[in-house]
Amino acid sequence: MGSRAGDLVTIDRVHAARAVAAELGVDVVVLTPGSDLRYLTGYDAHAMERLTALVVPRSGDPLLVVPRLEAPMVDASPAGALGLELHAWDETDDPFAVVAREVTARLGVAPTRVAVGARTWAEHALGVHRALPGSVLELATPVLDRLRMVKTAPEVEELAAAGAAIDRVHARMGEWLRVGRTEAEVGTDIAAAILAEGHVGVDFTIVGSGPNGASPHHELSDRVVQAGDLVVVDIGGETATGYRSDCTRTYVVGAEPGPEVAEWYAVLQDAQEAAVAAVRPGVTAEEVDAVARDRITAAGWGDHFIHRTGHGIGLDTHEAPYIVAGNDLPLEPGMAFSVEPGIYLAGRCGARIEDIVVCTDDGVRALNQGPRELVVLPG
Amino acid sequence: MGSRAGDLVTIDRVHAARAVAAELGVDVVVLTPGSDLRYLTGYDAHAMERLTALVVPRSGDPLLVVPRLEAPMVDASPAGALGLELHAWDETDDPFAVVAREVTARLGVAPTRVAVGARTWAEHALGVHRALPGSVLELATPVLDRLRMVKTAPEVEELAAAGAAIDRVHARMGEWLRVGRTEAEVGTDIAAAILAEGHVGVDFTIVGSGPNGASPHHELSDRVVQAGDLVVVDIGGETATGYRSDCTRTYVVGAEPGPEVAEWYAVLQDAQEAAVAAVRPGVTAEEVDAVARDRITAAGWGDHFIHRTGHGIGLDTHEAPYIVAGNDLPLEPGMAFSVEPGIYLAGRCGARIEDIVVCTDDGVRALNQGPRELVVLPG
Repeated sequence: MGSRAGDLVTIDRVHAARAVAAELGVDVVVLTPGSDLRYLTGYDAHAMERLTALVVPRSGDPLLVVPRLEAPMVDASPAGALGLELHAWDETDDPFAVVAREVTARLGVAPTRVAVGARTWAEHALGVHRALPGSVLELATPVLDRLRMVKTAPEVEELAAAGAAIDRVHARMGEWLRVGRTEAEVGTDIAAAILAEGHVGVDFTIVGSGPNGASPHHELSDRVVQAGDLVVVDIGGETATGYRSDCTRTYVVGAEPGPEVAEWYAVLQDAQEAAVAAVRPGVTAEEVDAVARDRITAAGWGDHFIHRTGHGIGLDTHEAPYIVAGNDLPLEPGMAFSVEPGIYLAGRCGARIEDIVVCTDDGVRALNQGPRELVVLPG
Repeated sequence: MGSRAGDLVTIDRVHAARAVAAELGVDVVVLTPGSDLRYLTGYDAHAMERLTALVVPRSGDPLLVVPRLEAPMVDASPAGALGLELHAWDETDDPFAVVAREVTARLGVAPTRVAVGARTWAEHALGVHRALPGSVLELATPVLDRLRMVKTAPEVEELAAAGAAIDRVHARMGEWLRVGRTEAEVGTDIAAAILAEGHVGVDFTIVGSGPNGASPHHELSDRVVQAGDLVVVDIGGETATGYRSDCTRTYVVGAEPGPEVAEWYAVLQDAQEAAVAAVRPGVTAEEVDAVARDRITAAGWGDHFIHRTGHGIGLDTHEAPYIVAGNDLPLEPGMAFSVEPGIYLAGRCGARIEDIVVCTDDGVRALNQGPRELVVLPG
């Protein structure tokens, strides 16, 4: 499915990061293994104590600092084709000194504003900082968000392929989610299906049955699914190019839902649908949150919607933009995020409906298509 | 296998961290999801953008700051039994302000030296720092290493169980590693066996066949194993309590090794055995490295041993102590680490032998027992 990472990543991304850094007055951006590095270079490096860092000074050539024993892996990755300068360091070298020296040489002066990736480990962030006395450490988030938040058309297709793959897993839920099985057993089957349906990795498998559904981030337990249980199934994985799926549906197993459940579930479904429909360029992230929240609150369930409405998605399952009160960011075409209100009744049950959507030129495109009704499984 | 995490973790660990912080003059230690948090509390939290942090001021009660929707997961984890004060924050709260306020209240004054976990994300480290103007950020490594580096007897048994489990996987290698199969196919089978033999997660499956064996951190590729290939197999996983396995053996498939290979492999095996035998209390980490390196160098292969001799292991696959030149840390009983010299011939092949060992009161105990000879598989 989808294209290869090498088709998505070009050196233009690194140059764009340099341009944004210069525009924001950041002297150098330092990014370690993780999605920022993968986004800019295609190098899906393993996070470890040895420093691997893409170093992008606001002027001069960017460089990649890597442990010598990892250098062959850079060449084997899409990053090998970008023409990046590579500095391999040996086991007894100080890689932070290498970063400091190379940046200072390029700028002609020691950098003042040093920006590190949001998920860079503290030992690497403080290592760089210590090697550049007098510098001030900050996050590279403003630089990276500017680039990563707005997906290109090929990136949207990667997310769409991921969404279609996770929809296929949900469509098969009746094969696994049955009365008498444990959440853990169901989760094992779902994980296998996530891989079988077009992902290379499983990110999470939440199966929250009965009272466990009231804990939004519950994962799996040995609880046995009972007849009549509501079951929140929130699942996602990683595709070959690193893009993520994330989709929640709520099921009821072995019985029709009672009238009270049907009533508040209808409120939830209406709120989710309205929030999705509200997405278009210029609407702010917090306005989308408010649309879902206001409807649930108006129906009397506001105290039971205990989390934000959504999160951006791309190479990370959670990234900007966050769909939450206080975020006045106006949406732009290409922004991709979840819309996932929930209602949680502590000690009893919960429900959540989650789609990934993309803001388009004039509205919204949903990347998940499965039914949003409470799906009754035979049990 | 082994005991439950709840049997290993008591509130004593948090109190010990507080005592070490006070001794080192650190005002507060802040630890986010990862092995430091798991070590101290038993809470195996998911790393995400929402702040979860164990906050240990040098005086006063420690506290756990968690997103409200994750609070049920703390209670369900071993941390729920520790009696830790829990501060749940809501989606629109500023959790860094919560940390700052609570620490300042306990100390009676704003903290000066704020130490964060080595693998704490920069966005969390800098968030805490920004909420405590005037403080200086540093790593909590000296505090955590002091505690985590020396394993208790129950921890050693967890590592021994992990080692026995990965030994069982190596013992079955002939089932999967055959001429005509790709590294990726072999890796898939190994991953399944890692789970079947007593792990809950697969950390890595390196199958470096032929020339790929010369890249120490090569993982898997579509290369087809050829008759006569040397194949470096370096594999590890995570047990239910979070302890790690990590063991490398080198195989030759479908043919006896040639005389040159046999000669330098003998050098490697002798070096690995000598380095293990050198382990005892008071010997330094770098002395163990030197024992392996000197033997390989004396035989003329020093330029081909391109990495350190080993790394500590516990709840992380790589942790202190590092067995590397420049580390003059004297070994103590309970320190657990790998001894894994290798010889790499670029473009041709490589070999590595890795055991996890524990420094005992008067010597060393190896936690991997499989044959260290070049194992010839039928092909």
